[in-house]
Amino acid sequence: MNKRKATTLKEIAKKLDISISTASRALNNHPDISDATKEKVQQLAEKLHYSPNLFAQGFRTQRSHILGVIVPNIAHYFTSTILKGILEEAETKGYKVIVSESNNNENKQSEMLRTMSQFGVDGILLALSRKTTSVDSILNTLDTVPLVLFDKVSHKIPCTQVVVDEEIAAFNAVEHLINTGKKRIAIIKETENSFNSEKRFAGYLRALKEHHIEVDKKIILSTEDVSLYKGRMMTNILLSLKERPDAIFAITDTAAIGAIKALHKYNIKIPEEIAVVGFSNSIHATIIQPSLTTVDQPGEKIGKTAVTYLIKEIESNKNEITTKTVTVKTHLIVRDSSFKV
Amino acid sequence: MNKRKATTLKEIAKKLDISISTASRALNNHPDISDATKEKVQQLAEKLHYSPNLFAQGFRTQRSHILGVIVPNIAHYFTSTILKGILEEAETKGYKVIVSESNNNENKQSEMLRTMSQFGVDGILLALSRKTTSVDSILNTLDTVPLVLFDKVSHKIPCTQVVVDEEIAAFNAVEHLINTGKKRIAIIKETENSFNSEKRFAGYLRALKEHHIEVDKKIILSTEDVSLYKGRMMTNILLSLKERPDAIFAITDTAAIGAIKALHKYNIKIPEEIAVVGFSNSIHATIIQPSLTTVDQPGEKIGKTAVTYLIKEIESNKNEITTKTVTVKTHLIVRDSSFKV
Repeated sequence: MNKRKATTLKEIAKKLDISISTASRALNNHPDISDATKEKVQQLAEKLHYSPNLFAQGFRTQRSHILGVIVPNIAHYFTSTILKGILEEAETKGYKVIVSESNNNENKQSEMLRTMSQFGVDGILLALSRKTTSVDSILNTLDTVPLVLFDKVSHKIPCTQVVVDEEIAAFNAVEHLINTGKKRIAIIKETENSFNSEKRFAGYLRALKEHHIEVDKKIILSTEDVSLYKGRMMTNILLSLKERPDAIFAITDTAAIGAIKALHKYNIKIPEEIAVVGFSNSIHATIIQPSLTTVDQPGEKIGKTAVTYLIKEIESNKNEITTKTVTVKTHLIVRDSSFKV
Repeated sequence: MNKRKATTLKEIAKKLDISISTASRALNNHPDISDATKEKVQQLAEKLHYSPNLFAQGFRTQRSHILGVIVPNIAHYFTSTILKGILEEAETKGYKVIVSESNNNENKQSEMLRTMSQFGVDGILLALSRKTTSVDSILNTLDTVPLVLFDKVSHKIPCTQVVVDEEIAAFNAVEHLINTGKKRIAIIKETENSFNSEKRFAGYLRALKEHHIEVDKKIILSTEDVSLYKGRMMTNILLSLKERPDAIFAITDTAAIGAIKALHKYNIKIPEEIAVVGFSNSIHATIIQPSLTTVDQPGEKIGKTAVTYLIKEIESNKNEITTKTVTVKTHLIVRDSSFKV
């Protein structure tokens, strides 16, 4: 078995019979130290593969150069693309990233915010857990450390928020269905008033209104989690109606895929009888048959944008809280589930 | 605009007209400090929402309680399930996790190893980038900080390695095809000698041998990246053979899905004419039609196991390098692509 050892500053100092402080200043090219000593120390440091403990340096400068990230679920594909953008941008700017998962649990989220700010991160990037009812712990965190919300946000929190153009995206998706001749468009959305679901629903309503299509509450279905299973269930409900819809807009791709699976089961032709549109352009979108028309959300760009704003806030050193909404553009990708060439 | 402020120990000391050291010892319940002073300090700290900077504490104890993780691609689904396990286990044990991505770039991987060990992480979890030809930088890192490899590993590195039972898993997958009556089983594998591909290929060969099926090199296809696109291409090649295979074992789910898409194009019945089996039980496996028979790799368990071994090594404080392979069990999930009930 090998012995593991890291050279410390103490060892260098001891070997050269100088003080630790002298060794340290020699390595940092301090003017008080003679060139001869500097050379001696630097040569030995190189020989022994000495590397300064940056963690300790962070302590001295009172900057950790660490960003904390809290997401509801790291294994969610869209989230992982945002994380990719966060890591890339943070790395470019010389920051490390600590990642945590709230598992959509509000208490865990609060605890993580506290731990991260105690830990000494320079700033926090947060996507809210699904059931965030109280924002107190977030407001407290905001008092001590810069914080930027992304993807899952709330207007109750006065800080920079990075989101996609949810309402416009949903408007475009529903208008596309109307343009292909659909007149009775159902929506599968969230029960709870999540920022995303609310905005997408608003886009749906606006598209119907602008095209003088009457809103029918029977084809507006809500569910607690917009999952594949719930997409199937809601579609079964829609198929049991006397007046079936001719299109379904699901506010997540997974629910849209559930809808497609339910339609397959009843041998309903997609898109001729019922068209389906999702939201987020998940990796499933081109795996499912027919391929899914959906809104492409640029995850990496969201991540990069959030990091850019957070670091700007950290490095401005102003200790001011900025309230700002930054909107990243999406675009609709038309595929076979809504329009066959 | 609000002013952001974090209470520091200095402020508490100043407000009470005591030294910082006294304030600190009072908060830490030091015996030298009178109960009256302790109470005074603790009450003020509470009032001002003072929280100790754990980053600074880490500096004092020379333990950062941070683990570094380097993965080839964070947006890869299987990787994100491993990360989920890593985060969960690290959190339980009081460690934070810094995540980095090598983008399958060997130089970037080396740089990250160096940065992380300089940064002062207590240990590193590494999944090797695809083209890791030189292990020097990894061996150097191993000299200074405990390191555990997972998923993408190499026998050239003397450390704890957490993997799945690749060979047994592949053996079971191929034997399952043989048991359903298939006699001419093709394999789509990696060109490069990655640990995973090599082991899976060995399992394939052993299954054929044990069942006295002759190996035919014409149906052993290799590709640099086992992607969906390459899965399609390789399947097109297999379909152009005079003697077509009656089953395809792809060493990744994505390549298996590519194979299914190619078979669909030529209206070949799955599994009757050609069966397909993948590897990893990705989220796609139940989205594709027919649903994919595949090897379930427990990502979270791999992550948790890797963290457990790494922390054990960190906390043993032995400064010894352990060479050990820890194998996590997989199991085959039989679905419609290989066997219809």
